[in-house]
Amino acid sequence: MAIDGGRLWQTIESYGAIGGTRRGGVTRLALSDEDRTARDRLGDDLRALGARVTVDDIGNMYGRLDGTDPHAEPVVFGSHLDSVPQGGRFDGALGVLAALEVLRTVRDRSVRTRRPLVLVNWTNEEGARFEPAMMASGVVAGRFDREWVDARADPQGRTFGGELERIGYRGEAANRLAVARAYVELHIEQGPALEASGHQIGIVDGIMGIAWYDLVVTGESDHAGPTPLPMRRDALYAAARVVTGVREIASRLGEGAVGTVGRLAPEPNIINIIPGRVQMSIDLRHPRAQGLRTGDDALRALIDEVARAERVEANLDRFWLSEPTPFAPDILALAEASCREHGYSATRITSAAGHDAKYMADRFPTAMLFIPCRDGKSHAEVEWAEPEAVERGATVLHDVVLQLAEPQ
Amino acid sequence: MAIDGGRLWQTIESYGAIGGTRRGGVTRLALSDEDRTARDRLGDDLRALGARVTVDDIGNMYGRLDGTDPHAEPVVFGSHLDSVPQGGRFDGALGVLAALEVLRTVRDRSVRTRRPLVLVNWTNEEGARFEPAMMASGVVAGRFDREWVDARADPQGRTFGGELERIGYRGEAANRLAVARAYVELHIEQGPALEASGHQIGIVDGIMGIAWYDLVVTGESDHAGPTPLPMRRDALYAAARVVTGVREIASRLGEGAVGTVGRLAPEPNIINIIPGRVQMSIDLRHPRAQGLRTGDDALRALIDEVARAERVEANLDRFWLSEPTPFAPDILALAEASCREHGYSATRITSAAGHDAKYMADRFPTAMLFIPCRDGKSHAEVEWAEPEAVERGATVLHDVVLQLAEPQ
Repeated sequence: MAIDGGRLWQTIESYGAIGGTRRGGVTRLALSDEDRTARDRLGDDLRALGARVTVDDIGNMYGRLDGTDPHAEPVVFGSHLDSVPQGGRFDGALGVLAALEVLRTVRDRSVRTRRPLVLVNWTNEEGARFEPAMMASGVVAGRFDREWVDARADPQGRTFGGELERIGYRGEAANRLAVARAYVELHIEQGPALEASGHQIGIVDGIMGIAWYDLVVTGESDHAGPTPLPMRRDALYAAARVVTGVREIASRLGEGAVGTVGRLAPEPNIINIIPGRVQMSIDLRHPRAQGLRTGDDALRALIDEVARAERVEANLDRFWLSEPTPFAPDILALAEASCREHGYSATRITSAAGHDAKYMADRFPTAMLFIPCRDGKSHAEVEWAEPEAVERGATVLHDVVLQLAEPQ
Repeated sequence: MAIDGGRLWQTIESYGAIGGTRRGGVTRLALSDEDRTARDRLGDDLRALGARVTVDDIGNMYGRLDGTDPHAEPVVFGSHLDSVPQGGRFDGALGVLAALEVLRTVRDRSVRTRRPLVLVNWTNEEGARFEPAMMASGVVAGRFDREWVDARADPQGRTFGGELERIGYRGEAANRLAVARAYVELHIEQGPALEASGHQIGIVDGIMGIAWYDLVVTGESDHAGPTPLPMRRDALYAAARVVTGVREIASRLGEGAVGTVGRLAPEPNIINIIPGRVQMSIDLRHPRAQGLRTGDDALRALIDEVARAERVEANLDRFWLSEPTPFAPDILALAEASCREHGYSATRITSAAGHDAKYMADRFPTAMLFIPCRDGKSHAEVEWAEPEAVERGATVLHDVVLQLAEPQ
């Protein structure tokens, strides 16, 4: 076993105390005092093992061990130390701290690689304080302008830029990650599939495409008593048919596709009035662009059918689309080889949630590794991963990163 | 033709100006200054035709023409002059003003009856300012205590009792309606059935039973991405199955039964989170007690089935039940005879909404008459009934009341 599982577990526990909650969770919002404490601690830990620490202009932290070839593109790996309110100690932190353990192992064993090894701690992956999520990796990938990001405000009106400077983590634009042989991120699954199937490692072959819709159904408000059923134009009845239909569409699509109505508001929302208007959301996810298009077509057909049958108007607005992101097959193959070598049961899995790896994949060969988390829970204080699972995940991360970095 | 349709229409128009809105509606909340103005006007109009005006201790106004037999129980007929905010000029006012037209006709034609004729204007039928609805007829029927009613407060904290005294309409308890041969109320349908079927008069054979439920569905909140469809415990998906199921149950019950989900709130109500909890209402109405029980059984079976299939908890609370109220067959027969005589197309109809006649039926032989209203709309400024329909309704009311009062 290359890495030191006990040391990694202790590191996770001690970082978990920064912003730790009484019930074992973590509240460490991006650019908060707790985030600064965790960043300071990470900088110290990186310098202590001999890594060179830099910070870019959106606060992303890098810890670098040079390779033997000063011109080689680095192998980059990490995740994020920020959390949602009352989150867990694994979401994000696992990827950063397993990366720290990889660097410590390399240092301890005096391993030399041709390529540099670079740990990264992304700023504000969660988007819980400053929207949107994956903000700083998005700047590095060219998705967002720094000026726009700097002006994002939290609910109290404090800006991203102001808070970044307040905690002392405004670095240099020149430090932004510009080239990389690969980006690799270890994360808890945040879903129940690995635990349910009994697999120890999820080799993440991509991130699903996500389409977000807003649907407004307009019928006619009427008294719930004197309006006979056949004469109703009940916006909530129509909306309910869409809610059940969305699930059926996702089931038919298969390949792990999911569809969810999370938000729904009828008007006037009074017990004895037939709702005349419903506004609702639809979230549709599919691993392939063609599948997402098929789902989109089916959704539009469903809504047309319901609107005709229930004599309501239905206005569908697809206001956000994130195309499916396939990961790099050569990195996936390295992960599978590592699992075989250690006897870990592994399975291919597609992430249905976004990660910084989504934006990294736009620029560099990228992959992710998942480990199971208890009951699939995350973004909650009960979030939990077993020490053995953490050790397995860090071991595969270590192997993949070392292979990519070309040990000498 | 006994009654004067033109005079009645002018009366409706002039009362409609009291609290009249720019778009042709009426805002005349119970015990408001506008209500006082309308009451003062009604008292003047009643006294002008020779009726004796009394007011009871909850503000109900009575206008009496004596019969030839001083011991005979009176025939009582009327409705209410209060309205909802931005309501129409027919809901309630039609029944009072048609009753006024009946008394004027009796006076003009010097008709003598054995029984007294008593017009009634009930206080606060709507419940729009002071909840609940049908408040003062409920006191007369023994459903509510006067002390309790006096303490009801409007949203500004002003009490029913205080406002009743402020507008000068606190009368004597001794004036409360105590005995009656019959109670008859003319009203707009407040639904589209008569207009759709082309009938001119609805002979209302009763008021449907109404059951109100609160349903709480508890599943599990999870990320909308990484939670596979078969592992979800989606409270909104389960709730949507109940919404569509309620309609199906009411359709199967037949006999004009209706079922409505008017209020529904998912939690946390966020686009990318599977709702873990939904609170919703169910409104079920049926003309017969047995039908309402059958609907209740079917509803419970549906909810059990959905809860099992979706692995959610479902807590159903029937927090209000109003038993079906059949009206008096002899009064319905008199109404049918009148329609035949005048060549009005009539149909039996069961009211799916509550009226003061509901409480009157607890104490006296009672019936109602409906006339069509445009598009079935009420409680809205667009509420409208055609002058011809108003004249027909008042004619049948006149005939029924006269027959019941036993012309000499």
